Amino acid sequence: MSTQVVILGASGDLTARKLVPGLFNAWRQGFFPESIQLVGVARRPWNDEDFRAHLAEYVPASIKEKPEWANWLGAVQYIQTHLDSEEDFKNLKNGLEELGGAVSRRIFYLAIKPDLFKPSVAGLSCVGLLAQDEEHRVRVVVEKPFGKDLASAQQLNRDLLTYLSEDQLYRIDHYLGKETVQNILAFRFRNAFFEPLWNQKYVELVQITVAEEVGMEGGRGGYYDTSGAIRDMMQNHVLQLLALVGMEAPASLDAEAIRNEKVKVLESLRPPEEVHMETPHIVRGQYQGYKESSGVNPASETETFMAVRTYIDNWRWGGVPFLIRTGKCLPKRFTSITIQFHMPPHHLFGNWDECHLRPNSITLRIQPNEGIDMTFDVKKPGPGVDMHPTKMEFDYDDEFDEPVAEAYQRLLQDVITGDQSLFIRTDEVEAAWRWADSLRRAMAETPVHEYEPNTWGPDASSELYGECEGRWTRG
Amino acid sequence: MSTQVVILGASGDLTARKLVPGLFNAWRQGFFPESIQLVGVARRPWNDEDFRAHLAEYVPASIKEKPEWANWLGAVQYIQTHLDSEEDFKNLKNGLEELGGAVSRRIFYLAIKPDLFKPSVAGLSCVGLLAQDEEHRVRVVVEKPFGKDLASAQQLNRDLLTYLSEDQLYRIDHYLGKETVQNILAFRFRNAFFEPLWNQKYVELVQITVAEEVGMEGGRGGYYDTSGAIRDMMQNHVLQLLALVGMEAPASLDAEAIRNEKVKVLESLRPPEEVHMETPHIVRGQYQGYKESSGVNPASETETFMAVRTYIDNWRWGGVPFLIRTGKCLPKRFTSITIQFHMPPHHLFGNWDECHLRPNSITLRIQPNEGIDMTFDVKKPGPGVDMHPTKMEFDYDDEFDEPVAEAYQRLLQDVITGDQSLFIRTDEVEAAWRWADSLRRAMAETPVHEYEPNTWGPDASSELYGECEGRWTRG
Repeated sequence: MSTQVVILGASGDLTARKLVPGLFNAWRQGFFPESIQLVGVARRPWNDEDFRAHLAEYVPASIKEKPEWANWLGAVQYIQTHLDSEEDFKNLKNGLEELGGAVSRRIFYLAIKPDLFKPSVAGLSCVGLLAQDEEHRVRVVVEKPFGKDLASAQQLNRDLLTYLSEDQLYRIDHYLGKETVQNILAFRFRNAFFEPLWNQKYVELVQITVAEEVGMEGGRGGYYDTSGAIRDMMQNHVLQLLALVGMEAPASLDAEAIRNEKVKVLESLRPPEEVHMETPHIVRGQYQGYKESSGVNPASETETFMAVRTYIDNWRWGGVPFLIRTGKCLPKRFTSITIQFHMPPHHLFGNWDECHLRPNSITLRIQPNEGIDMTFDVKKPGPGVDMHPTKMEFDYDDEFDEPVAEAYQRLLQDVITGDQSLFIRTDEVEAAWRWADSLRRAMAETPVHEYEPNTWGPDASSELYGECEGRWTRG
Repeated sequence: MSTQVVILGASGDLTARKLVPGLFNAWRQGFFPESIQLVGVARRPWNDEDFRAHLAEYVPASIKEKPEWANWLGAVQYIQTHLDSEEDFKNLKNGLEELGGAVSRRIFYLAIKPDLFKPSVAGLSCVGLLAQDEEHRVRVVVEKPFGKDLASAQQLNRDLLTYLSEDQLYRIDHYLGKETVQNILAFRFRNAFFEPLWNQKYVELVQITVAEEVGMEGGRGGYYDTSGAIRDMMQNHVLQLLALVGMEAPASLDAEAIRNEKVKVLESLRPPEEVHMETPHIVRGQYQGYKESSGVNPASETETFMAVRTYIDNWRWGGVPFLIRTGKCLPKRFTSITIQFHMPPHHLFGNWDECHLRPNSITLRIQPNEGIDMTFDVKKPGPGVDMHPTKMEFDYDDEFDEPVAEAYQRLLQDVITGDQSLFIRTDEVEAAWRWADSLRRAMAETPVHEYEPNTWGPDASSELYGECEGRWTRG
């Protein structure tokens, strides 16, 4: 088996920062006995050496210091071409053929602008580069954003699936490459004591937070201002976490079995337009100073913070609020999921005032410090029955010596081996957009609150708790 | 409120090692604003100074170094008397009257041989020392063993309750004074996520171990040889732990409410004679060398190790084996309760062979290192779904700075304040003996296996697992 990974748009950031380190480490750690040939494709008038020099400069220091790096880098190839015309794709095809050797698996990684997804796939198809058979597999990886709303995502799906079958198409969401995300299923379904509690009978609410410290640094204001928190985070990362934490047990660990269950959750999400409640269920915020960022419309109403109370309308979760939140310029970068349990029905211990702010909870920490916390109460030593909140923790880093693989490495490995479990299927991406579109319409009337950078967003977000006790986690 | 604690049999070990430190610390730590007058009673021809000198010599070093100790010791009194005749009890009464002062609570602590319980209580009653009213409370504490079988316990109950009401009688089991034992109820009923799992639907089996390293050191062979593991540990400590871990939620934390639930468990225990199973359910052992111990019959058949599979026949626990075990000369001193859960019904992760020996469990560590462990599985980082067993731990010592009070201190405090929750009620002690008597009859046919000191007892004890997976904990 020989594998060739062809990156379209190879001169960009992603290649040197994530894709090359991921492929190099996958090879170095022995996940693939054969070599993996990396071919960069871009418009820049580079030759192989130029491309290698570029990579050598921009890959992380941890990569450069590995003894195998220089050798590995020496095998990297470069093909210079535009991706505009049939001629360009013929050039690409010729370039690949000139490299020679039998390729049994070829991955095209589209590290290019979304509006080039369709013409590129069409071009690859036109020159026969997408044809596959038993001996020669072809897969295409596309980066987010996948569409900007339901209609555009459906159109993009139709466009791509004209040239590709579903099993060739890998829509990447790098959050799904993180160990803890994958561990959610193992944690829930390999252990006997969590699943029985994982439903509306015992769960008061679920919190999901994807918090970022950064704002518009690095000149991303132009992109962000047309996207906002919904498209940047909610529709993809946040809903993916929600689907994994809320899904039923799959019949098996096959990609289709897992994605069948995830899509059921997304399709069971109550559209935000149909959340008819006295208390607010959507809070939008924009940090002070955002409008002055480069690339941002000075009159922008784009939200950089968003908190939503949503519901999965099925037997397991009926009535349980899922409080989901994401924002920029928050005090801390972290992603976590907290399952907060009902208070015990019978208050034997402590008085009500003292204890009703301390429900039991389980927190799945996705980043940083991947791990699991369980919060519960123990009796304080001494006479009487004063209760004291405490925590048990599990940290991946403490438990495993090997560093946890970067998300991109894991996902690239899966593309190469053909495991689609951690990639988003057509119906999933459409279900997520259906909800996000409804959210966008529902929030049209919602004011955009200003918040100070380095705070936890608008105060109003605490109102999403409604009747429930508790508060947002702070990482 | 002034309290007087009168220890009958004050020249023995227990007084200096446990009772005096307990009372002194309770006073020093401010649990009682008023002073507590300690009066030692024994036959030895001592005066106050002799008794103080004896205590000063034998109390633990941690007590002697406290600045308040010398002063406190100076207030300790001694009354010399036998406890044989009415005359002796009159002497005692006169002695107490000579000490003067109004005593609103008087505790008689019977640190004497069990066969003296009845005559002592009769004597105290005869001279009017047990009479109580609203202003003057009298309580009597008796040490274990409380009887040696059901008949003798019933007789002793009848004897004592002729002179005392149930609310005056405090049968002590010092295991119940340990923080973790008390915490079992808080852990189970204050937290939302344990109680839903605490039943036959989710629990595969429960293990309770009280393991000792010591053998017959200290000349206790004479007592032990007539008692054996059943009377020394099983009937009291082990069954108390079993009752706390198995009981229903009490209606309140009142002593009667708690004891009502505990006694229901003990009364629901299937008598060992009625455990009709193919696999053995009783294993007896005697360590090599026991017969040579001082005071032990050289042909002794007394068991120094005992492991039993027993069942609580009620709706919560029907069919769940409770594997209980105690022994001397084991490799380690520890007491713990492990709740072992069923394997998940659906083996998504790992292969059966690999995972069926790793059920989830919760361990309540009673001693040493009081705390709680939860054992579960996480996914190993990397591709694939290899599972890895891990553990979350909670340790009392890490969480609380103040040293945890010794069991005797806590129990003495409860006697003084009149809280009987942690003392054994008449029906409890009788239910425990009823089960223990049945066990003794059932094991009459069971061979006594020899085991080497510093091993985990006879190999046969692993057979008690029967069809269940797992093995005995090792602390």
